[in-house]
Amino acid sequence: MMSAARTTAEPLKIGLLGAGNVGSQVARTLVEERELISSRVGAPIKLIGVAVRDVEAPRDWKIPGELLTTDAEALVDESDLIIELMGGLEPAGALVERALRAGTAVVTGNKALLAVQGGALSQAATESGALLRFEAAVGGAIPILRPIQESLSGDRITKVMGIVNGTTNYILDQMDSTGAAFYDALAEAQRLGYAEADPTADVEGHDAAAKAAILGALAFHAPFTIDDVYCEGITAVTSADIEAAAASGYVIKLLAIVEKNDDGAILRVHPTLLPRTHPLASVRGAFNAVFVVAENAGELMFYGQGAGGLPTSSAIMGDVVSVARRLHGGPDRPGAAGTDGDAQRVRGLPVDDARTQYYIDMVVADREGVIAEVARVLADHHVSIESMRQPGSVSIDGEVDTEAARERGAVVQIVTHLAKEKDLSDTVATLRALDVVRAVNSVLRVEVEQ
Amino acid sequence: MMSAARTTAEPLKIGLLGAGNVGSQVARTLVEERELISSRVGAPIKLIGVAVRDVEAPRDWKIPGELLTTDAEALVDESDLIIELMGGLEPAGALVERALRAGTAVVTGNKALLAVQGGALSQAATESGALLRFEAAVGGAIPILRPIQESLSGDRITKVMGIVNGTTNYILDQMDSTGAAFYDALAEAQRLGYAEADPTADVEGHDAAAKAAILGALAFHAPFTIDDVYCEGITAVTSADIEAAAASGYVIKLLAIVEKNDDGAILRVHPTLLPRTHPLASVRGAFNAVFVVAENAGELMFYGQGAGGLPTSSAIMGDVVSVARRLHGGPDRPGAAGTDGDAQRVRGLPVDDARTQYYIDMVVADREGVIAEVARVLADHHVSIESMRQPGSVSIDGEVDTEAARERGAVVQIVTHLAKEKDLSDTVATLRALDVVRAVNSVLRVEVEQ
Repeated sequence: MMSAARTTAEPLKIGLLGAGNVGSQVARTLVEERELISSRVGAPIKLIGVAVRDVEAPRDWKIPGELLTTDAEALVDESDLIIELMGGLEPAGALVERALRAGTAVVTGNKALLAVQGGALSQAATESGALLRFEAAVGGAIPILRPIQESLSGDRITKVMGIVNGTTNYILDQMDSTGAAFYDALAEAQRLGYAEADPTADVEGHDAAAKAAILGALAFHAPFTIDDVYCEGITAVTSADIEAAAASGYVIKLLAIVEKNDDGAILRVHPTLLPRTHPLASVRGAFNAVFVVAENAGELMFYGQGAGGLPTSSAIMGDVVSVARRLHGGPDRPGAAGTDGDAQRVRGLPVDDARTQYYIDMVVADREGVIAEVARVLADHHVSIESMRQPGSVSIDGEVDTEAARERGAVVQIVTHLAKEKDLSDTVATLRALDVVRAVNSVLRVEVEQ
Repeated sequence: MMSAARTTAEPLKIGLLGAGNVGSQVARTLVEERELISSRVGAPIKLIGVAVRDVEAPRDWKIPGELLTTDAEALVDESDLIIELMGGLEPAGALVERALRAGTAVVTGNKALLAVQGGALSQAATESGALLRFEAAVGGAIPILRPIQESLSGDRITKVMGIVNGTTNYILDQMDSTGAAFYDALAEAQRLGYAEADPTADVEGHDAAAKAAILGALAFHAPFTIDDVYCEGITAVTSADIEAAAASGYVIKLLAIVEKNDDGAILRVHPTLLPRTHPLASVRGAFNAVFVVAENAGELMFYGQGAGGLPTSSAIMGDVVSVARRLHGGPDRPGAAGTDGDAQRVRGLPVDDARTQYYIDMVVADREGVIAEVARVLADHHVSIESMRQPGSVSIDGEVDTEAARERGAVVQIVTHLAKEKDLSDTVATLRALDVVRAVNSVLRVEVEQ
């Protein structure tokens, strides 16, 4: 039950329904990171139980036995906050409704349930004053529903277009990049765990349609359900289509599109040709992205991992912390002044402590042994070389051995591996002082993929 | 003053400080869209005054004269919610502090103030229980601070990298795409209004450094200020650097980077080489984007317009609605079931009412007049052709006039202009029935830029 007059000594009781891929990851975070989460909330939290169908079933993470229960209703009744990760319509729907009607906060990632009963559940929450959050239901780890509901609450959204199903995006991307046929790409997705044994919900567009219903409901403040969504899957998309699209500068993506005109809103899911210059066109593999157009904000895009236990658990835990803060009546958000909970206050370090890569462009004397000398300077400072390049026609070892070339010197461009900024700046200082180095033209830092 | 016991009859009093580019747009929204905003809040709101230095100064939007005042302190004292858009340290800082100490909610977009006094202002807000929001301070219209503070509150952020200054991104993008020298690209940016007459704050990286301080403070829950940020601008970046980077597959961007290691956090702003495949590499012109890495969520990216009166006003108004909802103690967020405030409940329309473009791939008889016949069918259904293409060697009008070619038929690919879905589907049905159309291989919808 929600309680405004909670004392800080009494922990907030959290009940978890379901312990599959995402559920067991959430359980792990609540148990192993209890102090961090309590600190982020500003008050203690406690996982009091995990409702499962079978106490003995194997799980991704071993949940302490005393937490497991098969009595989901009792767990709902004892909790201040319910996290529903069972999926499917029932018994999830009845349990969520039971919690909301009692004024108990609910965090869920159940898109199928929301796409059918979202309006009724919102209504139940409003009537009892219960909090209901479901960021994980669309776009996995990507914060998309909160921006639509809050950040854009003073604007008018006119259109949302999303790549909201990683399975189909992976398949279409494979078809596009390797020329694979649909069924071969599907088989590969299944082999890699991106597609389920029965891929119907993904490839026929039903999963995307559920998300379109949720996006439409939030963007346009209307109780849309999956029945309002026109839906076409990707099973009819051929290699020839992909090839023809590519020849004309397009890529084919399965999009969930919701848009409003003067008469109402249209919700649709179908394979769509996008120009390769469109921000959604470069969303590869199993990633998700949602493109939002609002009257004042213009075009926005949100990109990230749309599925998987860890990423989805991040969205669930964000909702849990946000709801728990509200239930505790504590500060609304963490201020800039605070600690990270799991550590002493984070202190600022000088840039010398950064680990980065350097790009160094310099002119060296054009004679044998110079490169060895330069390389030794880097090695002496514990800096290793990722790549070395000598543009133009003058080769590093002076193969084009003219007087003019030697006079000009040779340009050498080095990209280092990751090293301490201090070592890199010392390296550059030493290089500048070398006789054989005529000039260091540019020193720039490099960031590559994580 | 904040009041939990507000009655719904009494409007929430909003005071606006500053009426420049963003301020006058916000004033306009609060006046012209008062009903929409009140409906989004769930209770009436009212703009009670706009504090300016000079009542007679010209503004982007003509604010009703009775709202203008030069007594900012009195306005702060009378308001329930203050929107601070004066910019700069003083008098903005003293006014914001005055409001927060009195428990009055503050929404601001003042990055310079936050980068210096953010910690102290957060502290003042926490002490009095006042709400403080500043989504517009980083990334303009892009919701980035709310996701960091709320959506990722149950995760650990390890790194944030952002293109957070549109002026420098425009300049570097121009240098990259046209080969322009720095000062030429700067002059062009000034001509287009992307850079100010005195561009120092942008090109020396100071604006990005202020934003780095804010990002670091929120990501790592520590009171960082602009003094904690290492800062290098873009004035030393040459065309030769850009060209050399391009030759090695890199693009140069001015990035604000905040990252954490076991010892602390490093905040830095400098020109950076990024591989062209990096999601930030394709952020063009005056757009902003912020890349976030968190332990569980993985990589996320947020993209949109980082400046300008309208986009920034969207972020300000999102904060205003969100704060006003809290002050009124009304429902926490709008449920899925509601109306859009400015209209009747939005109704769902059938897909036939959508306006979209079609890509049609078909095989037609390879003889003269066929294309004319196809084109007539489209015209009869009010569908116009954006492009028509005939791949392969068989030309549309049969220039390669062999018996075999005629037998095979000719492939024709058409992309239509925007039209009603119903007209497009009727067009395809009619084409299928034509004698000269041997097969319609594919019909796919097309989405182009907005």
